[in-house]
Amino acid sequence: MTELLNSSPRTDRANSIDSSRIDTAELGEILLGKWADVRRESRELAAQPRLHKIEGLDYHEHRERTFEQMKYLVEMKGVHRAFPTKFGGAGEHGGNVAAFEELVTADPSLQIKAGVQWGLFGSAVLHLGTEEHHDKWLPSILSLDTPGAFAMTEIGHGSDVASIGTTATWDPATDEFVINTPFRAAWKEYNGNAAKDGVAAVVFAQLVTRGVSHGVHAFYVDIRDPATKEWLPGITTEDDGIKGGLNGIDNGRIAFDNVRIPRTNLLNRYGNVDKDGQYCSPIPTPGRRFFTMLGTLVQGRVSLDGASVAASKIALQIAVRYASERRQFNASSDTDEEVLLDYQRHQRRLFPLLATTYAASFAHEGLLQKFDDVFSGRADTDEDRQDLETLAAGLKPLSTWHVLETLQECREACGGAGFMAENRFTSLRSDLDVYVTFEGDNTVLLQLVAKRLLADYAKEFRNVDFGVLARFAVGQAADLTINKTGLRQVAQFVADTGSAQKAVVALRDESGQRALLTERVQAMVAEVGGALKVAAKLPQDKAAKIFNAHQHELIEAAQAHAELLQWEAFTDGLQQIQDAGTRKVMTWLRDLFGLGLIEKHLSWYLMNGRLSMQRGRTVGDSINDLLAQLRPHALDLVDAFGYTEAHLRAPIATGAEKIRQDEAMDYARTQRASGTAPVDEKTLLLKVKSARKK
Amino acid sequence: MTELLNSSPRTDRANSIDSSRIDTAELGEILLGKWADVRRESRELAAQPRLHKIEGLDYHEHRERTFEQMKYLVEMKGVHRAFPTKFGGAGEHGGNVAAFEELVTADPSLQIKAGVQWGLFGSAVLHLGTEEHHDKWLPSILSLDTPGAFAMTEIGHGSDVASIGTTATWDPATDEFVINTPFRAAWKEYNGNAAKDGVAAVVFAQLVTRGVSHGVHAFYVDIRDPATKEWLPGITTEDDGIKGGLNGIDNGRIAFDNVRIPRTNLLNRYGNVDKDGQYCSPIPTPGRRFFTMLGTLVQGRVSLDGASVAASKIALQIAVRYASERRQFNASSDTDEEVLLDYQRHQRRLFPLLATTYAASFAHEGLLQKFDDVFSGRADTDEDRQDLETLAAGLKPLSTWHVLETLQECREACGGAGFMAENRFTSLRSDLDVYVTFEGDNTVLLQLVAKRLLADYAKEFRNVDFGVLARFAVGQAADLTINKTGLRQVAQFVADTGSAQKAVVALRDESGQRALLTERVQAMVAEVGGALKVAAKLPQDKAAKIFNAHQHELIEAAQAHAELLQWEAFTDGLQQIQDAGTRKVMTWLRDLFGLGLIEKHLSWYLMNGRLSMQRGRTVGDSINDLLAQLRPHALDLVDAFGYTEAHLRAPIATGAEKIRQDEAMDYARTQRASGTAPVDEKTLLLKVKSARKK
Repeated sequence: MTELLNSSPRTDRANSIDSSRIDTAELGEILLGKWADVRRESRELAAQPRLHKIEGLDYHEHRERTFEQMKYLVEMKGVHRAFPTKFGGAGEHGGNVAAFEELVTADPSLQIKAGVQWGLFGSAVLHLGTEEHHDKWLPSILSLDTPGAFAMTEIGHGSDVASIGTTATWDPATDEFVINTPFRAAWKEYNGNAAKDGVAAVVFAQLVTRGVSHGVHAFYVDIRDPATKEWLPGITTEDDGIKGGLNGIDNGRIAFDNVRIPRTNLLNRYGNVDKDGQYCSPIPTPGRRFFTMLGTLVQGRVSLDGASVAASKIALQIAVRYASERRQFNASSDTDEEVLLDYQRHQRRLFPLLATTYAASFAHEGLLQKFDDVFSGRADTDEDRQDLETLAAGLKPLSTWHVLETLQECREACGGAGFMAENRFTSLRSDLDVYVTFEGDNTVLLQLVAKRLLADYAKEFRNVDFGVLARFAVGQAADLTINKTGLRQVAQFVADTGSAQKAVVALRDESGQRALLTERVQAMVAEVGGALKVAAKLPQDKAAKIFNAHQHELIEAAQAHAELLQWEAFTDGLQQIQDAGTRKVMTWLRDLFGLGLIEKHLSWYLMNGRLSMQRGRTVGDSINDLLAQLRPHALDLVDAFGYTEAHLRAPIATGAEKIRQDEAMDYARTQRASGTAPVDEKTLLLKVKSARKK
Repeated sequence: MTELLNSSPRTDRANSIDSSRIDTAELGEILLGKWADVRRESRELAAQPRLHKIEGLDYHEHRERTFEQMKYLVEMKGVHRAFPTKFGGAGEHGGNVAAFEELVTADPSLQIKAGVQWGLFGSAVLHLGTEEHHDKWLPSILSLDTPGAFAMTEIGHGSDVASIGTTATWDPATDEFVINTPFRAAWKEYNGNAAKDGVAAVVFAQLVTRGVSHGVHAFYVDIRDPATKEWLPGITTEDDGIKGGLNGIDNGRIAFDNVRIPRTNLLNRYGNVDKDGQYCSPIPTPGRRFFTMLGTLVQGRVSLDGASVAASKIALQIAVRYASERRQFNASSDTDEEVLLDYQRHQRRLFPLLATTYAASFAHEGLLQKFDDVFSGRADTDEDRQDLETLAAGLKPLSTWHVLETLQECREACGGAGFMAENRFTSLRSDLDVYVTFEGDNTVLLQLVAKRLLADYAKEFRNVDFGVLARFAVGQAADLTINKTGLRQVAQFVADTGSAQKAVVALRDESGQRALLTERVQAMVAEVGGALKVAAKLPQDKAAKIFNAHQHELIEAAQAHAELLQWEAFTDGLQQIQDAGTRKVMTWLRDLFGLGLIEKHLSWYLMNGRLSMQRGRTVGDSINDLLAQLRPHALDLVDAFGYTEAHLRAPIATGAEKIRQDEAMDYARTQRASGTAPVDEKTLLLKVKSARKK
């Protein structure tokens, strides 16, 4: 990096301010988090060429390859970690997700197909089933002898699972459940393993017995003869064919024409039907029961959050390396061109994304630890589970949108080279595109968060009828029970510090950033909450209308809340850093993240008197100063992510560009030195001009 | 639509405000613009299945198919329009581009491959060559007997064409040019037709004769034996392989190892070398000459602008149709779910994109007419050409970014269905991704616009040394001569109206929007111009540093200027509408576009005292009101684009969703009416509760 440091004006300036250096080893270790060893192990696995995506396979070939890779994962004991020891696992939930996330660097299709088999299909049997089910089905699920689909989503119902149309009706004559798809919109849709590999499925359906519908439950259903691979009677399927990405996965649709299964195939941990058709459940209300069952599946959201962070790191490591070698245009010298990373605009494009990636990484580690606390049983109250749900619902939208933005900005920042499939951006972007709408559509998830915020607000102020608010936040479907603890007590913070009306704060000061970000969440929730109060007393259709008129604001409030959580996680992360120089640079990066959020929402701060016009005008300059300060550390900041060539696999991130640029500059220097190089016509014209003057 | 109108609360409200209806026929005709008949003809061609992209072909198959489609275009006389009548053309430049743009609806690979062959390779021979060249090469270029590459970009130089490394040195011994690639970074890169089909190329190289380098010129070079398809001696190529999209095009790299071509293969319209090696040019300065030569290729940017508008229309027509049928969650009724388009958030996601698409469409029509005026010779002064260049450089970035945003938002708004390749979004997005960086990287183009704005500013105020400003705007490369006319005289407008300091304006008033948008451009340019004044007196490296510190602001100013041009084009477009109802609705849509821009930059208006805090707080509400007003017209607004099923080709836009939803609702109604439907457990619990109370 010496040459860069010497040649860059921005770098010189930053150097004159500070000579701090990053300890990439220490920082890298912190980023690896609690399950550092597991991550290292999984990264080693993901570095193996046999697990890498090959671009340009057709979807049949890609599916075949992915399935073979799945077998290899089994062989390498890469899939058992979360399952009980009696099945060869370790009951380690956090570590399992950490390992799983890293697979995204090999091939997102492999990651998601593994997620379908062991994270959804297998997990449903584990968490919704009971011991008999475990003993019967888990061994062959873990060994991949029984590939299975997770049949929840329907054509007509994506994120609104409570409204699915498939029914499972107990038949007293045979003591069986009859699974039925009553109309086209109730076909199961987008189910991985449904088009080609699956021989069984966990099917979500409305459980009906003795004339009563007890809501959505999960059933284990064989769908194909494992020997002949023929579909079983009553099962009809369709292949989803080619998708925008993830084409290593065989998604498909399934319909059930009165398919009969033993009563005991009901995964009955949270609700059972006895041999007389009598329904009973340890959870008395249908809403709570639904929430509990779906809550066991939160790991999907947790792992998408982590995989998005991993892919963002890969993208930035590639783009920052290239930008530190690639030269274009000569402004400060007549002969040598600038490296891209010295351009302010280029820094503006990449560094805020880098700051957000760090924030998302710290936030994810917190989420993962919370997930592990709950699933290990160490902290497993209803309250803990609800906090986990809300945290996942807030962070997953931010990180999945962030990775798409990052991949796209990096692709554009690398120009035509960024568009070549070999440089990873376009391929990862295609695959990760669907992360923003599956495992809970981001927009719907943010409404779940908003619902929780409104509930907290209602409890805090005791002046809003919560029932009405909850009803409309995401429809009647997700009937959460709410409590006010767990999340950062925004309102409380404001009450404690009394800082709500302070118009002048130090922007590069931790407490200043916290005050601005926190007050915004509090004020936005209070504003929407106030507007919705009137809805409480109105008939349903009129209340819905008022609610709808505030839907956009509500989602914005939820997003502000999740951004605050990321900022807090980043700030907490700084405390772990021992090395003073590293902590200093990382604090600049945190400031860039904080100021980036404030700039993004600057109009809100100005309109609401939280920042004066004068102060507002300094935000952009402060950001520009931070960019210049961070410039000399950019390579260290991406190298700390710890991915190797085997993970990056991008020709533009190998140093090849520097070799080409050096060769070109050497050529030019040799030409100039030779004295035989052609003269530039422009130079001649200048000489003619000056000769005329004499 | 009747059922939708009756069931939607937002619609009811909008209806009570106004019962205007859109005349889609009239509006459609206006959108088709000056070359309506040509567009209709081209759309008919694009509707033919043989020209449609087939998803899932491998890139070899896709290339084959695209090449066959090219032959069909020749057969259908779809490629001659812009060429002289003696070659079977009509010399019709605007119409040619209009027809070309519509091909994007069939397959973007076909559009761009046709663009390479006839818009770049053929056009270079036409515009940079002279009659002898035309007679010799154009017939076989037009017939596709000579597929050719356009070899301008190099690995080491994308947008900075002036700095390319390839040389063409006149050899007095043989009276030939020797084309040479001196180092790896000077390999020609990303050239369509270079990997598989091309037998010739127009090669851009530094022309050297008699020891003087006269800058970049174009040369016609045979690269393969047309019979054997063997590469000619000295030619080395590499296949770029798989790209993020456009895989029907065979992009590749070419290197020249002292390849000899006749002197007369120099395309010599703007610069010639005679048999004594003497260089002469009708354009005295190298900078102007370079600009003039590259200026003939502006049609690439013009047509990408138009193709992006076309693809945005396709995306919105699909997404709005689906959202008007798809139901999800029930808020206002216990039984029926809402259609997506009735949700405020969904309107917020799609309608601003719709408004921007209309603005971009009107702006494109103006650009296309200006292009036709220049290339037809009707208005072909240097000033006209420079205005055209600047206009294209401003609009192409906005529309190419806009189409990516639109495709992505539409894909997400359609959930999992949006991710299926059959529904078009992901496929179009992959193909159009590269539009933002090719034919001039968007960020570089905006700097060209900024340079022009600074020059106008300097001329206006006579207090900035323009030479210095120009030097750093995009490096020394694009050495434009500047004049101050042509673009909207922003500064003049402010001077005329004296409205710069008015803090209160009517946001939904045309002149209010114009004042706000215009003042912002003027103030931003003045601010950067002022900051750069000091740079004029400093040494090159220090001046460069100051310039770099304002690069971001400068690009923002250029973007603001281009947004203003779009707004003006939309506003002008309103004048063409005869039908009062249509004009009223379209005025709302224009207001939504204008207010959307103001909201996007709201912090600027607040910080700079252009809007008060109180006024600022009304912007969001005004937008929400417009969304509700526009809701009943959404389907009409997309239907006016005039694309048919043969262009949309998306299963979710065929009405299938409505059939599914109706079937599901009928099923539920029949169940309720039957009296034998299962009772909901929730209902039972409520009964138990109320019984206990008694």
